[in-house]
This record gives sequence, C-alpha cells and structure tokens, in this order.
Amino acid sequence: MIQHSDVLERSLNDFAIEVPSWGFANTGTRFGKYLQATAASTLEEKFADASQVHIFTGKCPTLALHVEWDVPKGTTISSVLELSARYGIRPGSINPNTFQDQSYKHGSLCNEEAEIRAQALDHIFYSIELAAGLSSRDISLWFADGSNYPGMANIRKRKEWMEEGLRQAHDHLGPQHRMLIEYKPFEPAFYHTDIADWGMSFLHARHAGPQARVLVDTGHHYISQNIEQIVAWLLSEDMLGGFHFNDRRYADDDLTLGSIDPYQIFRIFAEIGHYEWETNTKADIAYMIDQSHNVKNKIEAMIQTVTTAQELYAKAALLDHEALEFHRAHQEIIDAENVYKDAFATDVRPLLQDWRRAHGLPEDPLKAFRASGYLKEVARQRQGRQKESAAYA
Amino acid sequence: MIQHSDVLERSLNDFAIEVPSWGFANTGTRFGKYLQATAASTLEEKFADASQVHIFTGKCPTLALHVEWDVPKGTTISSVLELSARYGIRPGSINPNTFQDQSYKHGSLCNEEAEIRAQALDHIFYSIELAAGLSSRDISLWFADGSNYPGMANIRKRKEWMEEGLRQAHDHLGPQHRMLIEYKPFEPAFYHTDIADWGMSFLHARHAGPQARVLVDTGHHYISQNIEQIVAWLLSEDMLGGFHFNDRRYADDDLTLGSIDPYQIFRIFAEIGHYEWETNTKADIAYMIDQSHNVKNKIEAMIQTVTTAQELYAKAALLDHEALEFHRAHQEIIDAENVYKDAFATDVRPLLQDWRRAHGLPEDPLKAFRASGYLKEVARQRQGRQKESAAYA
Amino acid sequence: MIQHSDVLERSLNDFAIEVPSWGFANTGTRFGKYLQATAASTLEEKFADASQVHIFTGKCPTLALHVEWDVPKGTTISSVLELSARYGIRPGSINPNTFQDQSYKHGSLCNEEAEIRAQALDHIFYSIELAAGLSSRDISLWFADGSNYPGMANIRKRKEWMEEGLRQAHDHLGPQHRMLIEYKPFEPAFYHTDIADWGMSFLHARHAGPQARVLVDTGHHYISQNIEQIVAWLLSEDMLGGFHFNDRRYADDDLTLGSIDPYQIFRIFAEIGHYEWETNTKADIAYMIDQSHNVKNKIEAMIQTVTTAQELYAKAALLDHEALEFHRAHQEIIDAENVYKDAFATDVRPLLQDWRRAHGLPEDPLKAFRASGYLKEVARQRQGRQKESAAYA
Amino acid sequence: MIQHSDVLERSLNDFAIEVPSWGFANTGTRFGKYLQATAASTLEEKFADASQVHIFTGKCPTLALHVEWDVPKGTTISSVLELSARYGIRPGSINPNTFQDQSYKHGSLCNEEAEIRAQALDHIFYSIELAAGLSSRDISLWFADGSNYPGMANIRKRKEWMEEGLRQAHDHLGPQHRMLIEYKPFEPAFYHTDIADWGMSFLHARHAGPQARVLVDTGHHYISQNIEQIVAWLLSEDMLGGFHFNDRRYADDDLTLGSIDPYQIFRIFAEIGHYEWETNTKADIAYMIDQSHNVKNKIEAMIQTVTTAQELYAKAALLDHEALEFHRAHQEIIDAENVYKDAFATDVRPLLQDWRRAHGLPEDPLKAFRASGYLKEVARQRQGRQKESAAYA
Repeated sequence: MIQHSDVLERSLNDFAIEVPSWGFANTGTRFGKYLQATAASTLEEKFADASQVHIFTGKCPTLALHVEWDVPKGTTISSVLELSARYGIRPGSINPNTFQDQSYKHGSLCNEEAEIRAQALDHIFYSIELAAGLSSRDISLWFADGSNYPGMANIRKRKEWMEEGLRQAHDHLGPQHRMLIEYKPFEPAFYHTDIADWGMSFLHARHAGPQARVLVDTGHHYISQNIEQIVAWLLSEDMLGGFHFNDRRYADDDLTLGSIDPYQIFRIFAEIGHYEWETNTKADIAYMIDQSHNVKNKIEAMIQTVTTAQELYAKAALLDHEALEFHRAHQEIIDAENVYKDAFATDVRPLLQDWRRAHGLPEDPLKAFRASGYLKEVARQRQGRQKESAAYA
Repeated sequence: MIQHSDVLERSLNDFAIEVPSWGFANTGTRFGKYLQATAASTLEEKFADASQVHIFTGKCPTLALHVEWDVPKGTTISSVLELSARYGIRPGSINPNTFQDQSYKHGSLCNEEAEIRAQALDHIFYSIELAAGLSSRDISLWFADGSNYPGMANIRKRKEWMEEGLRQAHDHLGPQHRMLIEYKPFEPAFYHTDIADWGMSFLHARHAGPQARVLVDTGHHYISQNIEQIVAWLLSEDMLGGFHFNDRRYADDDLTLGSIDPYQIFRIFAEIGHYEWETNTKADIAYMIDQSHNVKNKIEAMIQTVTTAQELYAKAALLDHEALEFHRAHQEIIDAENVYKDAFATDVRPLLQDWRRAHGLPEDPLKAFRASGYLKEVARQRQGRQKESAAYA
Repeated sequence: MIQHSDVLERSLNDFAIEVPSWGFANTGTRFGKYLQATAASTLEEKFADASQVHIFTGKCPTLALHVEWDVPKGTTISSVLELSARYGIRPGSINPNTFQDQSYKHGSLCNEEAEIRAQALDHIFYSIELAAGLSSRDISLWFADGSNYPGMANIRKRKEWMEEGLRQAHDHLGPQHRMLIEYKPFEPAFYHTDIADWGMSFLHARHAGPQARVLVDTGHHYISQNIEQIVAWLLSEDMLGGFHFNDRRYADDDLTLGSIDPYQIFRIFAEIGHYEWETNTKADIAYMIDQSHNVKNKIEAMIQTVTTAQELYAKAALLDHEALEFHRAHQEIIDAENVYKDAFATDVRPLLQDWRRAHGLPEDPLKAFRASGYLKEVARQRQGRQKESAAYA
Repeated sequence: MIQHSDVLERSLNDFAIEVPSWGFANTGTRFGKYLQATAASTLEEKFADASQVHIFTGKCPTLALHVEWDVPKGTTISSVLELSARYGIRPGSINPNTFQDQSYKHGSLCNEEAEIRAQALDHIFYSIELAAGLSSRDISLWFADGSNYPGMANIRKRKEWMEEGLRQAHDHLGPQHRMLIEYKPFEPAFYHTDIADWGMSFLHARHAGPQARVLVDTGHHYISQNIEQIVAWLLSEDMLGGFHFNDRRYADDDLTLGSIDPYQIFRIFAEIGHYEWETNTKADIAYMIDQSHNVKNKIEAMIQTVTTAQELYAKAALLDHEALEFHRAHQEIIDAENVYKDAFATDVRPLLQDWRRAHGLPEDPLKAFRASGYLKEVARQRQGRQKESAAYA
C-alpha cells in the first residue's frame, strides 16, 4: 500500500498553477457580459486579486500577462515589477495579442498583406522583450488566424507565412525563453483555423526551433478527441510545453476546470504522472489556467479551480504505476482499469486538508477567502467603474 | 420531363425571405468585432440597407426587428411605419431580447426570481403589442436561459416557469399573431439550455397554445443531427413555424447560408417541397435570415445569401416527386437518391437569370448592387460613427 | 449532516439492475468478434451466468431476454420458467428483434411493403404474448429502421407507419404491461433513423397510448447532448420508462457504464434523486444494462458494471437536496455546484462494503466471484462451443 | 473564360480510381449483413466485377487486394496474375490485415506480447512480398490497434512499438514501393486508437522512412474536422500518399462518396488542383474507394461512386485559380468564395458525357451497365453461394 500522504506531499509541493490576469476581469460571450462589481480593471487590481488566490491556496505564485490589456507599448518594466513585488506575485507567461486590432481582420502572421504580418511579428518581438524584462520564461502564442468561407484562403501559403513568422520569433528568443504554440480547431474563424490541431502546432514548433513547444488548451479539441493521448504523444516527443486549463461540454466553453468531466482531467494528470514515474524525471510543464466564466465570482472561481486541480492531481498522484504496468503486461484489462478507478474514487479532500495545514494554509481556501472580507472591500473600491460593453445577438 | 421554367416561376414567386435588422449592423465574436465603415447604426439605416437587398433581389419585402436594438420602449409606432413607408420595407417578425439586460444573468422566464420572470414577460407583452401596432404576424422567441455548471439549476422547475411564461405570452397574442419558439443546444449557456432541442420547443409550443409553432435555426443543432428530418416531423405535426437561415461547420457559427453544406439546405427545401407536393398545399413557413458574419460586407453578404437561398430552393423545386415516390415504393435506392442528385446537379443560375429578367430584376443582383455606388455613398455618410467595442480573449 | 449509511441503506435496497442475456454471449464490432471461452451460447448458460452476477451483487434479479436469440417462436414458456426457477433469476424485459431477418433490409414497421410491416408487427405481438406468459412487465422496442442515403425514404410516411404500428402494438398490451420506446441517432442507418431522438420517442409514445414510455439508452445521443436534462424533462412529463446503461466516448460504443464519464452518470442519478426527493415518490424506472464489450470477460464486466452503478447511485443518494435548493434559490452558483462536487468526491466504497456485509454479500463482488472458480469451470464445460452469434447493442 | 472541355479532357484522363475487392463482397454493420444475390465471394468474382466497373467508366484499371480475404498465404502469384490478365484489371494496393485473427485481441504491432507483434510484422512482410510479386506499388496500412478503457494501455510504449514495427516494415520495402499509413479516430477501439489522426500518421511516416506517406480516409476524422486543410498540409509537406474515398454523416459510416456532403469532396479536389496549378506538377496521389454500403447493389454503387467522383473532380478542375489568387491577394472574400461556388454550381454532366463519348465510353455508365444484363447473369451463377464473410471498412 502506498503511503498516500508522502506521495501527496511530494506531488502537491511541486504543482504550481499560473493564473491569468484576464481571469479577474469582466468577460462574457458574444451575447454580452454580465458585469461583476468586484471585477478587476487595472493591472494592479489583477495583481491584487491574484495574490488573494495565492494567499489562500499557496500554489499560484505567478500571473499570466496579456500584452495588449496589461502591458501595452509604453508600459515601463519597472512599474510592473513594482506591482509584482508589492503583491508577491511574479509575472508569468507573456501572451501577445494578434487578433484585437482592426488590422487583423484577415489574420496576423498569415495575413495576405506583408505589412500586417510585419506588424504582428513586431508585436511578438515586443512581447519577447517584455518577457526578458520581466524575467518571464514562456511566450504563449495563440493565433486567431483562419478563414470563414471556403475558397477565401490559400491554406498552404498561409502555412508558409506562419512558419516564417514563427522562425523569426524564435530567433528573437533569449536562451532562457520558451515559445509555446497553442492550437484551436475553430472560433473565431469558422471555416479553417491556421493552427487547428496538435499536429499543426507540433510541426510549426519543430520548424521554429529547439525552444518551441506545444501548448495544450484543454478546451481546444474536437469533441470526443482523446486529449490524454495527445499529452502522451507530446511527452514522448519531448514537445509538451504547458497547459491552458478549463473545461467544456460543447465548444470552447471556457468553464472552470473539472466542472464537466473531472475524469478526463484526472487521466491527463495520470499520463503525466506515469511518464514521470517511468522516466524518473519531472516533466517540465507550465500549468496555467485559462477560463472565461461569466457567472461565477472571479476570485472565488479561481480558488475553486485551483483546489479542483489539486484534487484531481492528487488522485492521479495516488496511482499505483507498478500495478498498472503489471496488469497491462499481463493484459488484465479490468484490473488495469480498476487501478485508475480506485485512484479516482479515493476521497483526497482530507489528505489535502492535511497538506494545507502542514503548510500553514487554510483547510478550506474558498471558505477562508470568503471570511476575509476581501470581496466586500473591493466591491466598494471598484464601485462605479463597471461599464456596459456592447452586446449583440 | 418537367418544364423547369414553369416550376421555377411558381416557386420563386412565392419564396420571400425576411432579412434581419441586426444583419446590417456591426457584429462579431466574443474576441471582438471587425468594424465596417458601411455598417448600419440606426433603424433608418437598417431600413435603407434592407431596401437595397429588396431592390436587387425582389424577394425581401420585410425586415425582422429586434426590440431592444431597434424599437425599445419609447419608440413610437408611427416613426417606424414612416421609415417602413419611406423605404418600401414592411416590419417583419418581432424579436424580443431577454438576455442583454444585466438582470438576466441567471435567466429570464426561467429565472429563480419571480421579479425577473415578470420583467421578461413584460418585455414579451410589449413586443406583442409592437407586433400589433406594426402589423407584424410573428413574435420570435429565443431564450438564452440555461446554466453553466452542473447542480446550479433546477431543470424541472425552470421548465415549469418557462411553460407558465409562454402560456401567458400566448394569452396575450392577437388572433392574427403567431408565437415562434426557437431552440438552441448551447451558447451562451454551456451546461444546459432550457430550450435545447426541437422536442423541447415542440412541447412548449403545444403547451402554450394553438398559435405557437417551432422556429428552426439551421445553426442550432448538435453536430451531424439530421435537420431535414426534424423539418419533416414538424411539417407532419403541423408545427413548423419558420426558419432562421445560416450555415455552420462547428457550433453556431452564423455563416452565410449554403456556404458550408449547400446540399443540406437543398434537402431541407426538398422535404418542404415534397410535403407541398403531397398535400397540394403551400406550407405556411416564415423564411428568415439570421446570420452574424464578421468579415463580409453586410449588404453584399445579404444579397449573396438571398441568391444562394433562391438557387437551392430552385434546385429543390426541380425535384421529380413522382419519380421519387415511384422509386421509394419499389425500394430502388440508387434511383431514388439519383432524383435528389440530379436536381442538385442542375445548374439553375441561367433559369434564375431568366426569372429575374422576367420580373424586371438585374440578372446578377450582387454585380448590379455594386455598380449602384450605394456602399461608397453610405461609407461617406456613416463615416466616423463606427466605434470600437470591447474585445476579450 | 446527513447520516450516510441510512440514506444508502434505503437507496441501495431499492436499486435493482437488470442484466441482458446478450451481455453474456460473444459480441463484437463489424470488424469481428474476439471470442471468449466462457461466453454463454444457450439460454440456460445465460441464466446461469446472470445468477452469478446476482449472487455476488445481490441486486440483479432479472434477465432481459432477446426474443430472436433466446425465446424464438417454438420456445415453450414452461422451459423458460423452469430455467428461471432453477437459477433464481426472473425473466425481465422482452426485446423484440426487427432488424436481423433479411426481410428487414429496408425497415420493419417503417418498411414500404405492407407485408414486412405486418411481419414486424406480428413479431411484436408474439413478444407481448411472451411477456404475458413470462410475467414480464416491459416490452422494449428498439427499431433499426432508417435510411442510408438522402432521397431514398419518405420520412413523413414512415413516421405514420411507425405511429400506426405502435398504436396497434399498444392495443395488444395487457394492463400489466409497459411499452418502452428507445431512440438512437444513427447506426445501423447512417442518413436518417426513424426514431432518432427523445422527442421522436416521446411523440410516438404519446400517440401510442397511456402505457407507452421512453427508454433512454445512455449511448444513444448526439455527442455533448445533455442526457440528464432529457431525463429531467421525461420525469417532468411522466414519460421516463427506463434506461439502457452503458458508456461511450464517440458513437454508440457500448462500453461498460461509468468507464468514460462517471460524472455524467452521477448527474443522471442526481436528477432522478432530486425528483424523488421533491415529489416524495419513487420514480418507476427500469434500470437495465445494455453493453457490448468485446475485450473484458463478460461476467466480470457485468459485476464491475453493477458495482460501478451502485457507487454512482450511492454518491447521488448522498446529495443534500435541501442545500441544493437553498443555493439555487439564492443564485449561489458555486455553492450549488459544490453540493454536487462534494457528493461526487465522497468515497462511497467503504459504505458500500458495509451495506454488502449487512446483506450477507461479499464486500468485493468481483474478487469473490473470481475466487469462486466459476469461470474455470464453465471454460471447461463450454469448450469448443464457441461460434459466431449475432451481436447487437 | 476557360475552355471547359479542354480542362476536363486533361483532368479526367489523368484521374484513375482504384476499386477495392471487398467492395464487391457482402458487408454490413455489427447488427448484421443484408446479403446480395450478386455479391462476389471469390477473388475471380471480384476481378470480374471490377472489370465491369472499368468497362463502363473507363478509369478503374486496378483492384485493391485484401491480403487475408483475397491472397492469403498459400496463394500463388501466378494465379492472381492470370485473373488479372483475364479480366484486364491490375492488382492495386495491397492491404494487410492485422485485426481479424483472434490473436490480435489486444493489438498487433502495439500488442504487449512480442510474439504477436512479430506475427503482425511477419504478415506485413508477406504483404510487401505480395506487392513485389504482383507489381503493386502501395502497401496500405490500417491498424485497429487501440484500447477500450482508460488505464489499460501504455500509450507511449505502444507508440514506440508501432514506430519500431513500421521502421522494420519500411526496411523491407523495395525501391518501387510506398508505405501508406492510415489514421482513424475510433472504432473498433473506443477509448484510444494508436494512430488516431493525421498528426500521428505523419510522425510515424516520418520516422519510418522516405517511402512512407499518409493515407487519408475521408470518413476517418472527428466530426467537423476540416479535411481539405489536412490535405493542404500534407501536400505542403510532401506527405500525402493517397485517399480512401467514402462519405459519412456521423462516424465512419462508409457511405458512397459524395452522398452526404458533396461540397466537401469538391473542396478536397480544389486543394489538390490548386497545388498542381501552383506548382505546375501532378500530385502523386493514389485515389482509392473504400466503402462498406449495405443496401445498394455493389457494382451499381461502385459505378455511381466513380461517376460522382468524376463529377466533383471535374467541377474542381473548372476552378479559375488565377481569379482565386487575385481575390485572395486583394482580400475580396465574397469574390474568392464565389469562384468556388461558381465552379461547384456548374453542371458538368453534359461535359462528362462528351468526354465519355470521345473515349468510346457509354454516356451514362450506370444505365449501360444495367442494360448489359450482367447482374442477372451473376445472380444466377452465384446463387446459393451467399455466406457471411468478414467485413471491414
């Protein structure tokens, strides 16, 4: 019998999760946003809110920054570092934005116009420089590039433009950096998306250079696609750079992690855990949250997400890999499956409480956060700064 | 051999298509909007743009109105009728909005709070009164009501609230009205949507009263669901009220009709045509466009949509229903299928040109519209009124 | 705090699960069958195997019978009742087969030829008489009727034929019977299936008569469709007759229950439990297993399925419905969701062991069954009798 | 204006399509087979039927062979070549079978047991030798390898075994051979499939060696996946080896090509045509049919498929690539799309009739075949020989 607490101690200590700055701001669907009185508007508010998540969970020391919304051209590095120091939260991954500007209507690095491609590349260069200044390691690239109607795009030519742009971006990296390339099957492009699946991310990363890796957003797959198999393949090829965590049922719903299919998230962690067990190495993976929930309170939802991630990670950490390999080798199907089922069925909440207590953290982070009065305070402070944004049907 | 031109003449004369006011305004995805210099902002501009579509296609005499965006409380009926008269376009279906207001965060007619339910019902009452004042027949109801996370909603109670609300709305109808109930599997709700499929619309319509019908949005189905079968069932039960036309590949992509899977639209028309042939009656169906394209010019795309709809409708009109029934009765599979394939393979564009010429319309509506200089003119007029709206990732 | 053991005691005592005769025979995919030395070939072997499942789980007292494979014309009622008595397993639902005979190539009740429709109806009549003779309550109807190519079927006419056939079948029922109508989106028909979704089953059941109900097979839905919502609607309309349990990832994969998405099965039980709590009645639902696994040992997989069903049912039984309603009423989203998450996170295996011990059952049914030596014994007995037999799911 | 007839002449002359031997035999679904009196049972009958397709269409000179069903160990090369000569049909691609034998229950090249892996590899070696003897160029590899339940498979280890096996198979190729690696998301494995998507085929092909290419089966994709984009990528990477043609709506339905979504097949041809136009080279692609229809007559369906393929190929051949590139370069969305729509809307049937007449072929191949009396003759000859034979797709 495995000593659960020991395994968990080691696992949970190593399991840091990055929170996204945009996860504290008002977000919504194309049908509109339901505004929250406590939503963050400024970078300082985002740092402040992120620090709350870290204070109560203990494992969220970094904040993913979105270049256009948080640190646009003109922002001084020192101002960000000052906020970072004040709130005890380090800048995390740097996220360029090459879709918001009107000029990107027909794409960024894949745009037919060389000028727009150059503009996008320039923005990525700037983002890399930001990463250098802020001591961030990862530049996370997601491209909305694609087309909406058959015939309107030269798919092969766009592939070449993307390839060329990514190669130049890679050349711009410092030795300490990684370039993470995200894929997504659709939305906002609805006919074709230039980087639509893991295979396309993979090839682009390979072509770009040795510091490029694939970024897996759990919501960016075809329905019923086996995500953990993709994770296993990427691990096998040493190309898994990180995750954007969220859950979904239909499309890229951006719901909170584990809210729809917790067993799937468990299986992803199981593949990673098995890889680490088998190779006796720690996989170098950036775990990041990227959600866009519209109805839950932002900070509460983030804490809930982190505790859910920890629970599913802990269940996977309890897997008896030796038993698993034994049953697989003997083709004992049911027994191998039951190793998974047993780990998943285990109630790890008491063990997590122990771990939190041992690390000076509140047993129930959400409850403790609520008791802190933070939300009431910021609701007062941020009052009146909410404004409606355009909705449509 | 069927006389193509006769069949087409009868069919196309009867095939009117309603355009939506919001189809001329700037729309987008949750990632932002790419603004068009010629997009309509005011109701007058929408009437003006709609009249262009009608002028060049000849078959779009009505404009669907969105209550909140076009005729909110305070609008005088006479002001709308005056625009209608000026531009030669009648008000079409009336579309209430029970999702935009912040109070609808947790639903409208299905909201847990009785006050919000009353507010939503009141808005629907107002919409019915508008329909009465504007001599519109159809009130189109689409509800964003639903939930995002398992457990948060009492699905059965919400069903009852919806049922009660729809019954009261139906009681409010004039004898000349119809209430069309739309369904949609997901978005903006991502766990459950209170009216998720045709069966739910159907039951609600049956419970509501004899003037209620089902509204089929071609983009609101599970992937691979057989839409034409639903159409056949609704015709069989006398419950098909109308269509919201668009196309899609993944989710509710809201692309222009027939751009992704034209054969599917053809098959929908084929079911309707077969019903009309068999029963020797004209099905009483409201054909309406509801798209949300982000990259095509609004008016051009609307004209393209109408001509595509006419082409697919014309192909279906060429179906040899007697041959179809003969082959079906004799279980001659390939021959029955080939009746469909032959009709679909026929190039109806020359026949449509004949029909247009015969009705004093330009042979190529898009080309003629472009030659008119309208876009250049409105680009100048509407200049500077475009404003950015919030984007997010 | 709810007393878990009391709740579980009441719940599990009432939760009987029917096993299918064909679940003990060799089944496979269209690519072939991997034969098992211990698979059952005769009705006696199926009764024998089912009794093993019942002996070790305590809650599987009935065996679903497939008319063509188990009790074809010519079978004497007494011979079946004798087996039933010998093995302590009662005949359960009666499952007609209107797809296997070559005459059903183009459908059964929906066939264009009246003679074939009569043949199918006659088979259903015979099945109802069997149910009368065997004291079975439910006749489970699943129709493979559909078409493979656009144009080959008159969908509306087939709907009428089905309606007529079901009405006649209903007229044939005894007062003690129920007619359960199953739906399935596709396979073996790949263009349209005559009863494709719950709405079609529902309308057919309503048209057929008061003893007709809808049968929900958990694998017969469009991908991402919300099954628990359908369950809630059917409960609300008093039209839920029963379940065919299995799990799936892609299509109708017929995997063992809870193997892919256990949280979804939990949510189905949660809707039922909530209905029972709210109405203070026991829902009259037939819980039946219908799987077609190709690699697991048949009896072991059945025991695994039953214990998995009990675990998920038990988790749902732990739901704090009052808390749920409180949080819903106050629109406390996260708290309502956490009621679900907490129940699902609870490790019910120790509680189930208590319950089994209290009822004289082995704590670990699978382990106990394996220790019994039954498989070794039947492998010897059934040796050499493996032959391909028709499979279905 | 393009001279349609010239373009078509060149295109159609070059467009040969391979038919599969198993397409003339009885096939079905897991629910059974509807047997056809004219279905082929022997290799000679398959050659005979294939020659009929070639006689009436003029473009099907080769027959794909399935090793286990057509040329199992013990078959003499000379006997096959004699049939080939007699019927004027050359052996086409060679298709090993590593799923039918009971030993492959847990996989072939990915099996945990080294002995089974060796058996599978041996079968592939034998298939390559067959290809050498029969002067076939392509060995088509489709693997059913996968798992049904989470936990039961070591995905990474299986990837390595597959990689090793394919490398050894590649080493066995003659210089004239190509190894085509097919992918499929699911079925018969329902949890994970070892080669599930184009990215996995691609990586395996790259690892295997320079003569390996990817084989695209049009039915082997996630629903809504953009197949033509994959085709474009594979062309761009010089890794597209060939196609298995069929159509589908839900899963791997194996319906006849173009029966469900003809526009998608057109778009695939459009990508190929654009590549050939841009590079001024003929893409080296094996076009093969792989369908498993259960209700249409086998030979008639094959002829229907070939004519449908020719029609869609011809429509794509009419594309005005210069216009396409012009509109793309100028970001004239609607105009670029209309180049596609115009080509697709063109009725190419008269042009195809011209082409057939010019090549001494019947204008309507299906009609001519029916008039030949062949089916009546073989129905008489093959009477009573119907037996279940293994099906696959």
